[in-house]
Amino acid sequence: MDPDLSQLDSLLAETGADAYCIDADSADSNQLYLSGFDAPDPFFTAYTGDSLAVLVSGLEYGRASKESRADTVARLAEYDHYERVDEYGEAEGTARTYATFLADLDAESVLVPDRFPVGVADGLRDRGVDVGVDHDDVVEMVRATKTPEEVDHVKRAQDANEAAMGAAEELIRAADVDADGTLVVEGDPLTSERVQEEIEVTLLRHGCSLDETIVACGADAADPHDRGSGPLSANETIIIDIFPRGKASKYHADMTRTFVKGEASEEVRRRFEVTHRALEAAFDALEPGATGADVHDAVCDLYEEEGYETLRSDSTTETGFIHSTGHGVGLDVHEAPGLNPRGGELKPGHVVTIEPGLYDPEVGGVRIEDIAVVTEDGYENFTDYPVELELE
Amino acid sequence: MDPDLSQLDSLLAETGADAYCIDADSADSNQLYLSGFDAPDPFFTAYTGDSLAVLVSGLEYGRASKESRADTVARLAEYDHYERVDEYGEAEGTARTYATFLADLDAESVLVPDRFPVGVADGLRDRGVDVGVDHDDVVEMVRATKTPEEVDHVKRAQDANEAAMGAAEELIRAADVDADGTLVVEGDPLTSERVQEEIEVTLLRHGCSLDETIVACGADAADPHDRGSGPLSANETIIIDIFPRGKASKYHADMTRTFVKGEASEEVRRRFEVTHRALEAAFDALEPGATGADVHDAVCDLYEEEGYETLRSDSTTETGFIHSTGHGVGLDVHEAPGLNPRGGELKPGHVVTIEPGLYDPEVGGVRIEDIAVVTEDGYENFTDYPVELELE
Repeated sequence: MDPDLSQLDSLLAETGADAYCIDADSADSNQLYLSGFDAPDPFFTAYTGDSLAVLVSGLEYGRASKESRADTVARLAEYDHYERVDEYGEAEGTARTYATFLADLDAESVLVPDRFPVGVADGLRDRGVDVGVDHDDVVEMVRATKTPEEVDHVKRAQDANEAAMGAAEELIRAADVDADGTLVVEGDPLTSERVQEEIEVTLLRHGCSLDETIVACGADAADPHDRGSGPLSANETIIIDIFPRGKASKYHADMTRTFVKGEASEEVRRRFEVTHRALEAAFDALEPGATGADVHDAVCDLYEEEGYETLRSDSTTETGFIHSTGHGVGLDVHEAPGLNPRGGELKPGHVVTIEPGLYDPEVGGVRIEDIAVVTEDGYENFTDYPVELELE
Repeated sequence: MDPDLSQLDSLLAETGADAYCIDADSADSNQLYLSGFDAPDPFFTAYTGDSLAVLVSGLEYGRASKESRADTVARLAEYDHYERVDEYGEAEGTARTYATFLADLDAESVLVPDRFPVGVADGLRDRGVDVGVDHDDVVEMVRATKTPEEVDHVKRAQDANEAAMGAAEELIRAADVDADGTLVVEGDPLTSERVQEEIEVTLLRHGCSLDETIVACGADAADPHDRGSGPLSANETIIIDIFPRGKASKYHADMTRTFVKGEASEEVRRRFEVTHRALEAAFDALEPGATGADVHDAVCDLYEEEGYETLRSDSTTETGFIHSTGHGVGLDVHEAPGLNPRGGELKPGHVVTIEPGLYDPEVGGVRIEDIAVVTEDGYENFTDYPVELELE
C-alpha cells in the first residue's frame, strides 16, 4: 500500500524541517506505516518528502531491501556504527551514526514525533541537528484516513472477530448452571480463561492473533479494563470484548457484546436497552463534518436524560458511563480519531468503534460495541452480529 | 514480586536525581516491572527511592490501586489534567500535569530512560524540571537478574514451548512427500503458516500467547528474521523458532530447532554438527564472571576454525554466523544481558539463550537454541527437547 503522505509533506514545508524521523521497532504503528517494514528491533527511518530512507542492522538488511517502502536501505555497518559504539558507548555512538546518516540526506533539521526517544533526540542535538517535536503526531493523523484496501483489512479482521464471538457465545449457551449459579461445562466450571482460550484459538484458526481478550463477569465487568478471571455466573452480566489483529495485514477489528446466561435483573435489562439506544444515537450523529465530540455528546445526552452519570456530568464518577464513546481502529486498536470530548472533525475513510457502556460494581457492566467506516454521506456499520442480552 | 531496586537507588544517589520516571504503557517492560501495573495506555511512574507513585486515567484508577506496586496512585483528573489539556493542548497540558505531580513528590530533577518520549521531556524541561537521561537503562539492568520466582515463570513458558515444538515436529513427521518434494498432509501442502497455527494453538492451550513464530524453510531459513511462508519442502532445512509469553506471568521462553524432512545434504549435516558443537562450546564458556563477549567468542572461534565466516571475521558478511550468540530472556524476549561482542559480566540469575547458527541462501539455515539460567557455579540448561536434524 502506498500511503498518501501529503499532510506530512505540508508539515515539512510549513516548518522548514528537512526530514521527519522515527526511531522505533514496528510495534510502533507510525514506524510500520511510514517505513512499510515489520521488524522486532528499533530502526531509524527518515522521510525527506522526496525520499524515504531506513537504517537497519545487517541482520535486517535483506528483508528491509525486499519488504520496506524505503527508496534507500542502509546498514549500520556502512556507517561504522559498531566502531562508534565501541569508542563512544551505545548512546553517543548511535547519535553519531544517525547524525552522519542524516548529513548524507542533507537533513540539518528534523521533526520527530512526541514519543521519539529523548536519548537519541538529545544526542542528535548535541551533534548540531535541529530536532523539533511534532506534538500533533502527523503520521497518526495520516493513518486515521484509511484507503479502501485498509478498510478491507479491518473488515477481514472483523469477520474473524464475529466467528470468535460466536464460539464464545456458543460455549456460554451450552453451559449448564449448577446449584451455586456457576456455569459448568462437562463437570468443570466455565471460566473467563476458558472462554478467552476458545476465542483466541478461533481467531488463530481465522488468521488473526491477539494479546488480550476481555471476558469479564459480574463485578469484574464493572471495570472496563478488567480482563476477567475465574468461573462465570448465571444471571450476571458477562462482557466480551474482542480486538484481534490480522496476522498478515496487521490491521485490527474491535467488537463488544454483553450477555447474561439465564435471567437479567430489571436494572440490567434497562441499562442494556438504554445502551443499545445510546449506540443508535451515536450512529445517528456519525457523519463526515461532525466531530468526535458531537458523537460523544449524543451518547452523554441520552445517558444523562435516562438518569445515569457520565464523566461529562461528573468528571470523578466511578460508575455510569466512564469512558469515551469510541476510537479509531487500524494498525493500532486505539488510534485517531477519538470519539471523546476533544474529538475533532470526522472524515470519509475514518474507521471507528462506537462503544457506549454503563458500569456499577453493584449491578455489573453493560457495553455494546460496533465498528464502522465513515463514508461520504454517513457511515457503513460493517458489524454483523446480533445485539442480544439473555442467552438460554 | 518485589524487585531488588538497590541498583536504581544507587543511581539516584550517585546522580543526585530526585526521581526515576517512566512514561509508557506496559508493553514497555521497564514500566511493567517498575510499576507492577499492566495497562494498555501510557501512564506515568515516578520512583523516588522511598516511594513509588503512578499517575493514571480515571479508567485505570481502580485496577492500578489493586494491582500496581505503587505506594501512591493518583488520577489525572485530580491534577486538573483535562482542563490543562483544553487550555494548553495535549503536549503542554500533559507536561504541566506531570510537573505538578513531580512537585508534589518534591522532585525537581529526574532521570529518565533513553527511550522516554522527547515531547514529554522537553515539556518538563520547559517547566523547570531538570531531566537527565539514563543511557545505561538501569531498570533493564535490574531486570537482567531474575528472582527464583521469575526463573520459574520462564521455565513454565518453556514447558509450553516444548509442547508446541512437539506438535510442530509431529506435523512434519506425519506429512507425506509428493512428487515435487513438497510436504503434504491430507492432500494439502503443509505450509509454514499451517505449522505456525499448530504451534500457536498449542501455546494458547498451555497458557501462553505469542506474536510471531518462525517456521522457515530453504532459502527463507537462510534469513534469521524471516518468519517463513508457503509450502514446506523435503530434504531442505526447516528452522522452527518459538518464543512464547506466559499470559499470566508475562515472562517469555525461547527455543529453536532445525529439522529436515527426509535426507539432509552432506553440507547441511556438517553445519548442523558444527552448530551443535558451537552450542556446547558456548555452554562451556557460560559461568558467572565470564562475559557475554567470552561466550560469543567461543562460538566464533569454533565456527572460524571450521571454515565458516562470522561477523567477527568479516563485519559485512551476509552468510555464515551473522547474529549474536544469545540474549537475556524475561519480560522481553530480547533483553540484557547480551551474548555478543559487547556483552558484559554474567551473573547468577541471568536467564539467557544460546543460539548459534549458520546461514547461506544456497544451503539453507541451521540454528539450535537452548535456554538456561546462570547459577553460582555455572549454569542450568532447562531446555528439555532433543537435538535431532532428520525426521523420517
